[in-house]
Amino acid sequence: MDAESKSGNCDAWAATGPDGVLSPHKINRRAVRSDDVSLRITHCGVCYADVIWTQNKHGDSIYPLVPGHEIVGQVTEVGSEIKGLNVGDHVGVGIYVNSCGDCESCNSFTEIHCPKMVVTFNGIDADGTVTMGGYSSYIVVRERFCFKIPDGYPLAKAGPLLCAGITVYTPMIRHNMNQAGKSLGLIGLGGLGHMAVKFGKAFGLKVTVFSTSESKRAEAIDLLGADNFVISSDKQQMEALKGSLHFIIDTAAGNHPFDPYLSLLKAGGIMTLVGFPSEINVHPGSLIFGARTLSGSGGGGTKGIQEMLNFCAENKIYPEVEVIRMDYINEALKRLVNRDVKYRFVIDIENSLN
Amino acid sequence: MDAESKSGNCDAWAATGPDGVLSPHKINRRAVRSDDVSLRITHCGVCYADVIWTQNKHGDSIYPLVPGHEIVGQVTEVGSEIKGLNVGDHVGVGIYVNSCGDCESCNSFTEIHCPKMVVTFNGIDADGTVTMGGYSSYIVVRERFCFKIPDGYPLAKAGPLLCAGITVYTPMIRHNMNQAGKSLGLIGLGGLGHMAVKFGKAFGLKVTVFSTSESKRAEAIDLLGADNFVISSDKQQMEALKGSLHFIIDTAAGNHPFDPYLSLLKAGGIMTLVGFPSEINVHPGSLIFGARTLSGSGGGGTKGIQEMLNFCAENKIYPEVEVIRMDYINEALKRLVNRDVKYRFVIDIENSLN
Repeated sequence: MDAESKSGNCDAWAATGPDGVLSPHKINRRAVRSDDVSLRITHCGVCYADVIWTQNKHGDSIYPLVPGHEIVGQVTEVGSEIKGLNVGDHVGVGIYVNSCGDCESCNSFTEIHCPKMVVTFNGIDADGTVTMGGYSSYIVVRERFCFKIPDGYPLAKAGPLLCAGITVYTPMIRHNMNQAGKSLGLIGLGGLGHMAVKFGKAFGLKVTVFSTSESKRAEAIDLLGADNFVISSDKQQMEALKGSLHFIIDTAAGNHPFDPYLSLLKAGGIMTLVGFPSEINVHPGSLIFGARTLSGSGGGGTKGIQEMLNFCAENKIYPEVEVIRMDYINEALKRLVNRDVKYRFVIDIENSLN
Repeated sequence: MDAESKSGNCDAWAATGPDGVLSPHKINRRAVRSDDVSLRITHCGVCYADVIWTQNKHGDSIYPLVPGHEIVGQVTEVGSEIKGLNVGDHVGVGIYVNSCGDCESCNSFTEIHCPKMVVTFNGIDADGTVTMGGYSSYIVVRERFCFKIPDGYPLAKAGPLLCAGITVYTPMIRHNMNQAGKSLGLIGLGGLGHMAVKFGKAFGLKVTVFSTSESKRAEAIDLLGADNFVISSDKQQMEALKGSLHFIIDTAAGNHPFDPYLSLLKAGGIMTLVGFPSEINVHPGSLIFGARTLSGSGGGGTKGIQEMLNFCAENKIYPEVEVIRMDYINEALKRLVNRDVKYRFVIDIENSLN
């Protein structure tokens, strides 16, 4: 461990090299500026991004690296200009903590697309410091990137909304997938996928879950409320659904064919990709005939995040989580890689981070 | 030539085998039914589809085959139930002549997507007959698939609107590409592409034409009114446009990379494919980062076709055509294959079809 690890003002867990193993680490948080709030972190969701960057899978990791971008906590201090938040408020921080504030994307509150957007960990902030995520006891964040968690919403469940939740909610709203009575197909029943099913049902959609494994049927139907469950390798079941779906959300991270799913869409139907395969191959006819659309999406803007949090509270939409202690994180990341989680780990920071 | 060739009630030019060579041929048109109109054909545009099916490139051609689905003419007879059209009206017929009239697509006047849609030539109509296109002296069509050409619109120029025109107009309207001040990129400056430039300028867009050949610059700018012309192989020019376009319409029929064009779109930008390459390969990041969309489109519905015809008349939008005689068609099809046409051949049926 480097010198900083014993002298910082904030307790955290960091990876110190590409083996990705996390251990206790002291980091420094900045003093609260006029447009900042400081929050005591109570919980932090565990996203696959935490695996990617702790293990330097994209080759751009900066160590020591403190992951975590599904951050939930309580405001402990507010800057002099802060009007919207007060000490004691329950708040969340998602996948980014800064943006320019003055571009087309920022002006339309889709800051995720701002060229100067700064991610919550392993990002270079406007002041040149490297951002550190939510596997830590507290964080100082500009108010704009801090969201109010509605009263009564369980803090242990709020974290996954801030990445997994908004990642599926954003394209659903953008592409009008919130029209009751329409049909939604969902590929990949993980952290993102299970939220898409919950949103779909809250919007009044008929939801069909596609899976490679029969073992997920009961949970898809009974636990998550899906209307239909289809084994994607079953050609007869797939054929029967041709031209029947208004929308598909594809949360699968692995490579898979796209044409069979596009053929399930009605004319004018929309398939949105939020998972990250290594390539997309599509036959032009799959898009041209039926005027179908393949769209991508990742994260969401600040306006959408707050709307989603409010929507979840109003509609009692709660992610399915497995709450873990901080010292279980290395085991949890292994299980995440093996897809052995239903459906999101959340670290109980306030009771287990020393 | 078969027996029909000398005994039909309608003069036409047909291909009789996969060599695609066209020659005079008699065909039979049905008597006018209660919901039909009959029209004397004055002009017919020449589409690349005419090459595909006269030469059996898709393996489904039925000979003798009379191509032509950009049909313009004058009503000579109307069925007993016809209320919207009168003898003498100028009308057009596009790429389809029948549909079920009772499905989701028909009910929303997007009959192009009806599962029972019947194409204008080489299609099997509801009564079992094979449809014959506009390289002929007259045609009998259900009123629903017959569009009124506004008074004063030159008939020699109207044909290309009915396939090339509507094919680019439809996605432009659907994806809100008619918002003045926004930016449109156009790939492929042929029959479809030149119409996209004209529509783009009529909508008040800033239009950038992408081409592989410097030779098209003057026409793109001076003749068609494009604002910008970029050689797509010029990496510096392409780099300078990154993230700058709201929309791209891709009319290129040949294979080409998609990622470089997708990277030119702004966040939330839309690229629509109306050409027909043999495959599409896209990096997922090209769609996910910036929440970009790749959409397909082909043809349009009856409501959109009439709207487009009216829009073209109101805004004096005329396709650039080279009017030819019927007996020039075999040469014209060769030139079309060699992309030697600016920008659409139109056959002067009324003055040259014997």
